[in-house]
Amino acid sequence: MAGILSLEKLIEEFRKMPSVGLKSAERMAYYVLGLTDEESKSLLDAISDAHSKIHMCETCCNLTENDKCSICENAKRDHSVICVVEDPRDVTAFERMHEYKGVYHVLHGVISPMNGVGPDNIKIRELISRLSDDSIEEVIMATNPTAEGEATAMYIARLLKPMGIKVSRLAYGIPVGSDLEYADEVTLSRALSGRSLI
Amino acid sequence: MAGILSLEKLIEEFRKMPSVGLKSAERMAYYVLGLTDEESKSLLDAISDAHSKIHMCETCCNLTENDKCSICENAKRDHSVICVVEDPRDVTAFERMHEYKGVYHVLHGVISPMNGVGPDNIKIRELISRLSDDSIEEVIMATNPTAEGEATAMYIARLLKPMGIKVSRLAYGIPVGSDLEYADEVTLSRALSGRSLI
Repeated sequence: MAGILSLEKLIEEFRKMPSVGLKSAERMAYYVLGLTDEESKSLLDAISDAHSKIHMCETCCNLTENDKCSICENAKRDHSVICVVEDPRDVTAFERMHEYKGVYHVLHGVISPMNGVGPDNIKIRELISRLSDDSIEEVIMATNPTAEGEATAMYIARLLKPMGIKVSRLAYGIPVGSDLEYADEVTLSRALSGRSLI
Repeated sequence: MAGILSLEKLIEEFRKMPSVGLKSAERMAYYVLGLTDEESKSLLDAISDAHSKIHMCETCCNLTENDKCSICENAKRDHSVICVVEDPRDVTAFERMHEYKGVYHVLHGVISPMNGVGPDNIKIRELISRLSDDSIEEVIMATNPTAEGEATAMYIARLLKPMGIKVSRLAYGIPVGSDLEYADEVTLSRALSGRSLI
């Protein structure tokens, strides 16, 4: 809106958010203008609370409001198996499955020389330091099946193998419920080479 | 994220925004977590500033930080022509054209009995009170070409005509740059009946 500085500033702030374009940012800004004082306070509190209270679990680097996340704190989980993921949202995806009983390690990124992200910029050192504990039996690499996710998994596997720790990788294949016709060649080739007897 | 209350609360607040689904709200919340303290303060300030400073122009009900909006304050505009729109964003769209020299009146909605919005719930009374000024020559109805926008335009036109004020409506037709093949029948029929000599 020409001339309304505080509105332009707000639209600009919303546009910085991921997957928010100009139209969405405008809609969000007008939504804020239409809030009651109470609703606006609730939004402001939610942002400042989340920003100030949430930090990384001192063990697995997942997000938490406490020193350790609820998964690391849980004695019923199998602490000898660590699933390594890129992002806290990947932990949520795994937990939604209700099948995995081990713990996690969140890298907060992947190695990406193109974007100036080296091994020291993600939480690899923190993972290695966890492995000095003899009780760790297996590390499951669950980075994304992208070039960078792959390279990161390979990099970490190469560090871990000399330590005598079993390192595994999630299976590649045709997604359940999809159509073979639309599978790309790489996925199909991985599905073929990873086939199992029935 | 299971167990992180402040994150769940933030995602919930973002989900209330228009055209923000669960995935977008999650992405936005993680964006907030990744902000520096300074960036987070800038976002919070933008929200609270916009919410507290912006209100309606006392003349045209457009948004402004002052008593009157910059358009109503501008002596170079033609104050004898009022363009009636539903929403402040429609004013922005008109202004982008750089052709309209009159002023505006923002209804902040349309009459919609289905949603419990009657003539008294939108800024029709404020429009009528502006028309007591004899200098008003024309009112251009620029509500959206929807059933409700149409009905609102008709309702207002019926109030204004006895006052001896010229009331006009934006032209309907094929949008410039579109393809006739994809035009719906109603639009095509309006384009035909509204045809002009060349």
